[in-house]
Amino acid sequence: MTQCFITGGAGFIGSNLADRLLADGHHVTVYDNFSTGLPAFLTHATKNPRFTLVEGDLLDTAKLTSALKGAQMVYHLAANADVRFGTHHPEKDLQQNTIATFNVLEAMRANGCMKIAFSSTGSVYGEPVVFPTPETAPFPVQTSLYGASKIACEGLISAYCEGFGFQAWVFRFVSILGERYTHGHIFDFLKKLKKDPTQLAILGDGKQRKSYLYIGDCLDAIHTAVTKASAPYTLFNLGTEEYMEVNDSVGWICEKLGVKPALSYSGGTRGWIGDSPFIFLDTKNIQALGWKPKVSIRDAVLRTVDWLQSNGDILEQRA
Amino acid sequence: MTQCFITGGAGFIGSNLADRLLADGHHVTVYDNFSTGLPAFLTHATKNPRFTLVEGDLLDTAKLTSALKGAQMVYHLAANADVRFGTHHPEKDLQQNTIATFNVLEAMRANGCMKIAFSSTGSVYGEPVVFPTPETAPFPVQTSLYGASKIACEGLISAYCEGFGFQAWVFRFVSILGERYTHGHIFDFLKKLKKDPTQLAILGDGKQRKSYLYIGDCLDAIHTAVTKASAPYTLFNLGTEEYMEVNDSVGWICEKLGVKPALSYSGGTRGWIGDSPFIFLDTKNIQALGWKPKVSIRDAVLRTVDWLQSNGDILEQRA
Repeated sequence: MTQCFITGGAGFIGSNLADRLLADGHHVTVYDNFSTGLPAFLTHATKNPRFTLVEGDLLDTAKLTSALKGAQMVYHLAANADVRFGTHHPEKDLQQNTIATFNVLEAMRANGCMKIAFSSTGSVYGEPVVFPTPETAPFPVQTSLYGASKIACEGLISAYCEGFGFQAWVFRFVSILGERYTHGHIFDFLKKLKKDPTQLAILGDGKQRKSYLYIGDCLDAIHTAVTKASAPYTLFNLGTEEYMEVNDSVGWICEKLGVKPALSYSGGTRGWIGDSPFIFLDTKNIQALGWKPKVSIRDAVLRTVDWLQSNGDILEQRA
Repeated sequence: MTQCFITGGAGFIGSNLADRLLADGHHVTVYDNFSTGLPAFLTHATKNPRFTLVEGDLLDTAKLTSALKGAQMVYHLAANADVRFGTHHPEKDLQQNTIATFNVLEAMRANGCMKIAFSSTGSVYGEPVVFPTPETAPFPVQTSLYGASKIACEGLISAYCEGFGFQAWVFRFVSILGERYTHGHIFDFLKKLKKDPTQLAILGDGKQRKSYLYIGDCLDAIHTAVTKASAPYTLFNLGTEEYMEVNDSVGWICEKLGVKPALSYSGGTRGWIGDSPFIFLDTKNIQALGWKPKVSIRDAVLRTVDWLQSNGDILEQRA
């Protein structure tokens, strides 16, 4: 039984993790500013006496340091995950990712908490030259402010391991799908099709190759790593052993919804500035610990559509 | 003739660069907070009508943005370069390197200045597994707060190239030696030997293998890159094609000073936490543009000793 502290614990991945950790018998404190997280995602958790919710911002170092008291393990998931609009507000990635992560590490240090799991991203590979891309891929050039900020966080965390004796598990995620998914291409497609099922505008040429991972498999992988990897600093790619084209996803979604929209493309091989046209990660390292994804990308997409359809209010509320 | 803006322009590398750019006919504005830079280093430059000095801090965004008006090319050299004591004040690398670089990029964007040369470091390779280490070495794990902050800066700069159309030249320096050198192992050794020439305490086992580059060669390399590399984002290791052991340097220095101190070692293969026991960079990329170092590491060490001896007040003033 561990005292767990989840930043961004009201978000998609964080709230699912909270439920999982509570089910496993741990104490869980969620720290979230509800900028994108939703109170509804914590309905189940709040009924558990081992659960504590602190509404707070990671830039509020006093509140953060106080909330972290007694924590033994931090799952730092809070982030500005808005990859696409990075250039609209470059200070967001710096503040909410880089500086926020520094604040988490300092609050941990102040409280003598030395273990951290961190959600990085496959975006740190920029535009990779090796596929599937291993953790030791050639030193990449960052192409997005989001990737740049996440690599800054990784660097901080590993330097804290070396300099202050922290232990860290860093995960380079592909995009995660499943229950409580609230932003990304499926969200956008569903929102557009709900408004007008006769047409669908797609960013790029639709041939961008992307990898996805189901939330359940993601949580299994985190659990596997944290319980089995004992080195001071470990780094794992998380993804499936397959990829899809954006057009595949469009087909699955339209079939499920029973719509046949006319497709139009914005053109170019990238959906937006800094978008990587091919993401496919080598997951040998985490698989060597005994983990394997159970849900295919197609099924993950379909489950996500299911969830969004049964939670139509989410589609309505979000931009 | 270019309007050049040098952050950290009163420092070791910055002030030498200012002199060089003025000699080449450019206009030069130096922006420095004199936290480690010295007014004396700008004595020559201040006599030049094409020179402007602005005393300011990179965290003062209003002053920085105003000072940058009219600049066509930024040489961003200001940094907390105190690698060894990073863990004593982890916020320093974040503020003076990562956030300061963000501020420089934003001030450039506000002024429509799109060209930046940046001093990164070989420390971003952590503890490399390939020697000599090429720019495309396997994705490293950061072992120092300094290296982590510089990789954060590199990421920001490359993302600004991708996202905002900037052009950047990023240099991963080995340690630089020569006139106006004011901190590092030669400085420490001379200071200790001046106090007591009969003994010398050395951090680590003295067998750490390090590379150095003479300031003149460093400036030549920057000039070569900036004038010949035309891609939006280029990245160059800068160093010599050799390395030395710390013990070699001790021998050269003692011979030059005519002292024979008893040597003692703190032990271990690293001088301090996060110290990399072997630094040796592959410089094929910059050499392909026609640059070659002219001064050996040994001569660079000796010139540095010469300069420090003729400028004894520097040794006195600095910790």
